[in-house]
Amino acid sequence: MAAEVHELTRDDDIATVMAGLGRRARAAAHGLATAPAEQKNAALAAMAAALRARTAEILEANAGDVQAAQAKGTAAAFLDRLRLDPARIEAMAKGIEDIAALADPVGAVIAEWDRPNGLHIERVRTPLGVIGVIFESRPNVTADAGALCLKAGNAVILRPGSESFHSARAIQACLAEGLGAAGLPADAIQIVPTTDRAAVGEMLKGLDGNVDVIVPRGGRSLVSRVQTEARVPVFAHLEGICHVYVHAPADLEMAIAVVINAKMRRTGICGAAETLLIDRALAGTHLKPIVAALIDAGCQVRGDETVQAADARVVPAKPEDFGKEFLDAIIAVRVVDGLDAAIAHIAAHSSGHTEAIITDDQAAADAFFARVDSAILLHNASTQFADGGEFGMGAEIGIATGRMHARGPVGVEQLTSFKYRVRGTGQTRP
Amino acid sequence: MAAEVHELTRDDDIATVMAGLGRRARAAAHGLATAPAEQKNAALAAMAAALRARTAEILEANAGDVQAAQAKGTAAAFLDRLRLDPARIEAMAKGIEDIAALADPVGAVIAEWDRPNGLHIERVRTPLGVIGVIFESRPNVTADAGALCLKAGNAVILRPGSESFHSARAIQACLAEGLGAAGLPADAIQIVPTTDRAAVGEMLKGLDGNVDVIVPRGGRSLVSRVQTEARVPVFAHLEGICHVYVHAPADLEMAIAVVINAKMRRTGICGAAETLLIDRALAGTHLKPIVAALIDAGCQVRGDETVQAADARVVPAKPEDFGKEFLDAIIAVRVVDGLDAAIAHIAAHSSGHTEAIITDDQAAADAFFARVDSAILLHNASTQFADGGEFGMGAEIGIATGRMHARGPVGVEQLTSFKYRVRGTGQTRP
Repeated sequence: MAAEVHELTRDDDIATVMAGLGRRARAAAHGLATAPAEQKNAALAAMAAALRARTAEILEANAGDVQAAQAKGTAAAFLDRLRLDPARIEAMAKGIEDIAALADPVGAVIAEWDRPNGLHIERVRTPLGVIGVIFESRPNVTADAGALCLKAGNAVILRPGSESFHSARAIQACLAEGLGAAGLPADAIQIVPTTDRAAVGEMLKGLDGNVDVIVPRGGRSLVSRVQTEARVPVFAHLEGICHVYVHAPADLEMAIAVVINAKMRRTGICGAAETLLIDRALAGTHLKPIVAALIDAGCQVRGDETVQAADARVVPAKPEDFGKEFLDAIIAVRVVDGLDAAIAHIAAHSSGHTEAIITDDQAAADAFFARVDSAILLHNASTQFADGGEFGMGAEIGIATGRMHARGPVGVEQLTSFKYRVRGTGQTRP
Repeated sequence: MAAEVHELTRDDDIATVMAGLGRRARAAAHGLATAPAEQKNAALAAMAAALRARTAEILEANAGDVQAAQAKGTAAAFLDRLRLDPARIEAMAKGIEDIAALADPVGAVIAEWDRPNGLHIERVRTPLGVIGVIFESRPNVTADAGALCLKAGNAVILRPGSESFHSARAIQACLAEGLGAAGLPADAIQIVPTTDRAAVGEMLKGLDGNVDVIVPRGGRSLVSRVQTEARVPVFAHLEGICHVYVHAPADLEMAIAVVINAKMRRTGICGAAETLLIDRALAGTHLKPIVAALIDAGCQVRGDETVQAADARVVPAKPEDFGKEFLDAIIAVRVVDGLDAAIAHIAAHSSGHTEAIITDDQAAADAFFARVDSAILLHNASTQFADGGEFGMGAEIGIATGRMHARGPVGVEQLTSFKYRVRGTGQTRP
């Protein structure tokens, strides 16, 4: 545990401080809701400029965070996520400019139709309101989440982890500067001024109705706490236990390429494949070369008996290896008796995030699409495409596996609500 | 309070019974998710036929409920909502047939696009899962909600009020018969076998993750309890404090017609106008005839001093009359200083349900549409159009004022979620 950071005095009561944050966020959200696209984009441009101009300040704040984390003996992977350099700050600035370049979702007409009585009805996007973002080590979430929420006309309350607090604070100061430069309320992007965990508890209770949705960004324990305790909706996924199923007939070269990419491109992301299912009809032809390719690429293969027989380097799989999120160069492999068995296995073990089928059989792919209930389903493509940027949504604030409001990548459109505009000429209801 | 009704034995624990309902609903929902439209429609047709065939049984059950309610001295309006007759049962059957005739939302492609790498992405509707419906006196909610949820591929758990329990049970038996006739799981439409309020508490806790959303149908106290206690999302509105604002210039005849309809067509529905705001620029021309028309139509007008001066029959308005849901032939009327004042009044007093502007000034109407944050906004049309049927959605399960997932009328489309289907030709992520 990092030491707690407070910008509060001893007399401040955390519940009171947090309630004030909520009220200011709500007031800012009212102002943002009708802000023109140009004004929001001007703020985003000014934020990017401020990040570049104040790079030295941000690096200094970050150096303090890194030093404190090192002193505690924090793991190297964690330090890597925490550490900023000029290239990472430039990437943040560029990311904000990319968000500015997206179409403004607010006011977009999602659907429109006419009624026989002459009424014209439109469903139009509105901001969602106030978003609470709770994150851990990566300071860049400050910039990404702040910019995405602003683009969709929402206010945001950011709660960084103890370890990244000073870095996040320095970045948030740049965002506030950008808001001010464009004449938007600085309270549109606030940061919780303490890392006391009680502040998280207050956010999860919804700050008297002033938080509309919570987005946790971080490891399993953070997401689990948020999902369990939150009294407001949560956009999140607990795990990404992604499956790839190879169904006969399937092109062997494609199968190898997609499986290797799905597992090995990056093993630590939620869209990485964790389990490979191979149709028994392919056990004599595809199993051995796919398994060999995985092992040759540096992946440990944990397989059932048939898989073990295919390659001496295969490690026996334990039952709990199926449904496990390795987030590492390890994959569980099983031979299944066709499509129904594959779908049943996925239903039993999936986390509802992303699954892929590799096959030349279009009917089997259609059945897989219809019957597997995960946020993202792919046919003949890598599970690592489970990403808002790869979907063409621009940036994303995360991937959701819930079924309410947002599912899959959560981009600017998923951070909106809607209302109805009805235009008449004096119609009265009979 | 009505006497509690139990179909349980003394040894049954309510939490255990409810958990079982939840598990069976989830299992049924899995089956429904891939049921073809034809099968669901066959079930709906069989339900309608069963309602007609078993009209006598339903009336007998209802007579028992009515007798018990009368014995307790229940109010006439309540008895009217509770009482069934052959015409009302026929209307239920016809309502189910209308739902069958709607387009099947499940599998509909909401959006699709291509990526530069050749991936084709589709966002397609899926069922939401398990819906919990908690209602009070109207037995017809059993049929409406059961049919709507089924059409969208959802399982539903119905919890009728004590007073309508036997009527609801008889109707649900017809729905179960229809499900069985079409080969669909009878657990798709279950009824809570007790009216013990502890069962409601269990539903609001979500039955171990087996209830995805709760829809309360009833009075303010029911909705308030559900909104306060529910640990799962709720589609509801607490009140319908609907405003009509008449802005200069406005056609006087149209203003009178729309105001009278908005207030007086039916005074007890959530889309009925409760407050009338009149632009001060119209105080000399429109105020007097509009107020006179309301009073002549049998409406009590509670007005500010300017309104009182316009007609001797106006009653002085108290501050609390603004923002009050009268649900009666009473309206609060206030003269406001133009559009900004009207919007500020609405922001302070509205329940976020429905507001209308009457004006010939298109720019004012556009500003009203942009700046008023309610689920439904109308220009030159009556607030009583706030209804799923009038919107062309077919039936609705209610009107939601929340901002998550559903807002405004909740019809079959709002009872769905979605997933992504991605079709490739072997793409791997660089």
